Amino acid sequence: MGLPTKARIVEVGPRDGLQNESGPVIATAIKVQLINRLADAGINHIEAASFVSPKWVPQMGDAAEVMAGITRKAGVTYAALTPNLRGAEGAIVARADEVAIFSAASESFTQKNINCSIAESLERFVPVIEAAKKNNIRIRGYVSTVLGCPYEGEIDPAQVAAVARELLDMGCYEISLGDTIGVGTPVKARKMLARVAHEVPVKQLAAHFHDTYGQALANLYAVMQDGVSVIDTSIAGLGGCPYAKGASGNVATEDVVYMLNGLGIETDIDLEKLVPVGNWITQQIGRSNGSKVGLALGCEE
Amino acid sequence: MGLPTKARIVEVGPRDGLQNESGPVIATAIKVQLINRLADAGINHIEAASFVSPKWVPQMGDAAEVMAGITRKAGVTYAALTPNLRGAEGAIVARADEVAIFSAASESFTQKNINCSIAESLERFVPVIEAAKKNNIRIRGYVSTVLGCPYEGEIDPAQVAAVARELLDMGCYEISLGDTIGVGTPVKARKMLARVAHEVPVKQLAAHFHDTYGQALANLYAVMQDGVSVIDTSIAGLGGCPYAKGASGNVATEDVVYMLNGLGIETDIDLEKLVPVGNWITQQIGRSNGSKVGLALGCEE
Repeated sequence: MGLPTKARIVEVGPRDGLQNESGPVIATAIKVQLINRLADAGINHIEAASFVSPKWVPQMGDAAEVMAGITRKAGVTYAALTPNLRGAEGAIVARADEVAIFSAASESFTQKNINCSIAESLERFVPVIEAAKKNNIRIRGYVSTVLGCPYEGEIDPAQVAAVARELLDMGCYEISLGDTIGVGTPVKARKMLARVAHEVPVKQLAAHFHDTYGQALANLYAVMQDGVSVIDTSIAGLGGCPYAKGASGNVATEDVVYMLNGLGIETDIDLEKLVPVGNWITQQIGRSNGSKVGLALGCEE
Repeated sequence: MGLPTKARIVEVGPRDGLQNESGPVIATAIKVQLINRLADAGINHIEAASFVSPKWVPQMGDAAEVMAGITRKAGVTYAALTPNLRGAEGAIVARADEVAIFSAASESFTQKNINCSIAESLERFVPVIEAAKKNNIRIRGYVSTVLGCPYEGEIDPAQVAAVARELLDMGCYEISLGDTIGVGTPVKARKMLARVAHEVPVKQLAAHFHDTYGQALANLYAVMQDGVSVIDTSIAGLGGCPYAKGASGNVATEDVVYMLNGLGIETDIDLEKLVPVGNWITQQIGRSNGSKVGLALGCEE
C-alpha cells in the first residue's frame, strides 16, 4: 500500500500521559496551558481529560475545570475518556468533541484491571454510546494489549480483530490499537494489523504503540507501510510504563513528528513550536524529557 | 529483498561508546571485563580498543593493556581502530583480529575534524592498509555523516557511495555507514543505501545508525528490508552525541537485539545475559542506561 501522504497525530499526553505519571496532582492551570500550547503547535486532536471518579484517579479530578479552561481552537478535536455513563454526561456538559471508550484484547488483562470479561466491559459502554450519539458526539474506541499482555503473554490477532470489530459495530468511528506494554516488533505489528484490517477498514484504525522496549517508531514505520495514518503519541513521552518502574510508556510526539517530517508525511504540526512544549511540561512536573528529539533540539536552545 | 534470516551485531561500546563518554578515564580492568562479558553474552564482533595517541584520546590510552587483558573467545573478532601506521603497528602487536579505518561523506566534517580533505584522509590510511594486509588482518571501513552533516546539512548519497567505493577498492572487506548525528529517517536511509549499493554489494555494507532523534530502530528496520544484515550497536547506548549535550549517540545493542529477536532474525546473542552487562557498565561509569530494553527488563530484576 505504501506510506500515507498525510497523518493525524492524536495527542494523549494531557490525559493518558499525565494520568500515568507518578507525583503530585498537577494544577489545572498547567493542564490547560499544556493543551492550549499543543493546539498552538498545530496538533488538531487532543485527548484532554478523563471523566472518571476522582476517588479512582485523583490526577483527573479536575476534568470539567480543564475542559472549561481551555481556549477552543477551530478545527481541533478535544476528546475525553469516559469510563461510564456518569463520565459521558460530564463530558457532554463540558462540551467534549469526542468521547473515548476502551477495552482490551486480553481476557486476563481485563479481569485483573476491571474485574470483568471483555464482553462485559463492552456492554458497560452501551449507555455511554447512547448518550454520545444522542448528542452527536463522536466515539473513539481503544483496544489495549494488542501485541502482548503482561499476564498471558502472546495475544491472538484474531482476538484483537474481534474486539475491534465489536467496537466498530457499537458505533466507534475509529479504533486505536494499543501495544500497552510495548513488546511488539515490526513484523508482529504488521501481522496483527493485517488480521484486524479484515474486520475494520485500515483507514479507521489508529496505532497506539508504547516505547517501553524502544520499538515504537520501528513499529509505526512498519504499519504505516500498510496504510495506517493515525498515530497516538504523548508529548515528551509523558506517561510511564506501569508494568516496569522507570521504563517508558507512550511514544513521544516529537520523535514521531520528526520521523513523519523525514518521510514527507504531512501533519500540520510545527516541530519547532512543539519541542519547547515538551521541555516546559517536563520541567513543570519534574521529570526528564522522554523525547530524544526534545533532548537533542532542546540542547540547542 | 526482504528481511535477512541472520544478522551480525558489531558491538562498538568498548571503543566508540566509552571514548565518547565524558567523565574520568575508565580502569583497564573494567574495559576488559566489559569486553569479556559481551563475548560471553554471544556477541562475536567487538570493537575493543583504539590505537590512538593518548595525548588526543586519554580514554583509549590503555589499548595495548586492554587487548592483552581480554580472554579471547573462539569465533569472536576483536577489532581495533587505527588512525595511522603507528596505531596499526600497535594493533598488530596486540593481536587485533581486525583494524578499522574511517572517513566521512562530508568535506566540511572532514576538514573541521581532521583538517584535511576526504581524499587526503583516505590517502593517510594507505600505510595502515599495507601493514594490515602484510599481517593478514582484515580491514573494516567507516564512513560517517552518511545521512547528514552538522556543518553542511544534507549529504548527497552519491558522495557516500563514492567514499564507500574508495574504501572497498583500498581493501576493506566491509563498509560501515554511519549516521553520525542521527538525523536520518527510514526512507532517506533506504535511498542512501540504494545509491551506495550501486558501488558496494549490500552484503558488504553495515548500518551504524545513531539514535540522537530516536530514529535508529526505524531506520535499521528500513534498511534491513533492503538486505542489510550487519549492524553496529553500543551496549546500554554508551557514547553520547558530541553535537548535542545530554542527547543520545549510538543505538543501544539491547534494543536492536530485542527487535531482531522479534523479527525472527538470528544473532546468537543471549538477551538475558546481555541486559545485566548494560546495567553493570552504566553503574560502573555513573551514567543512566540508554537502552529502553535495559530499563524495562532491568526493573524486573
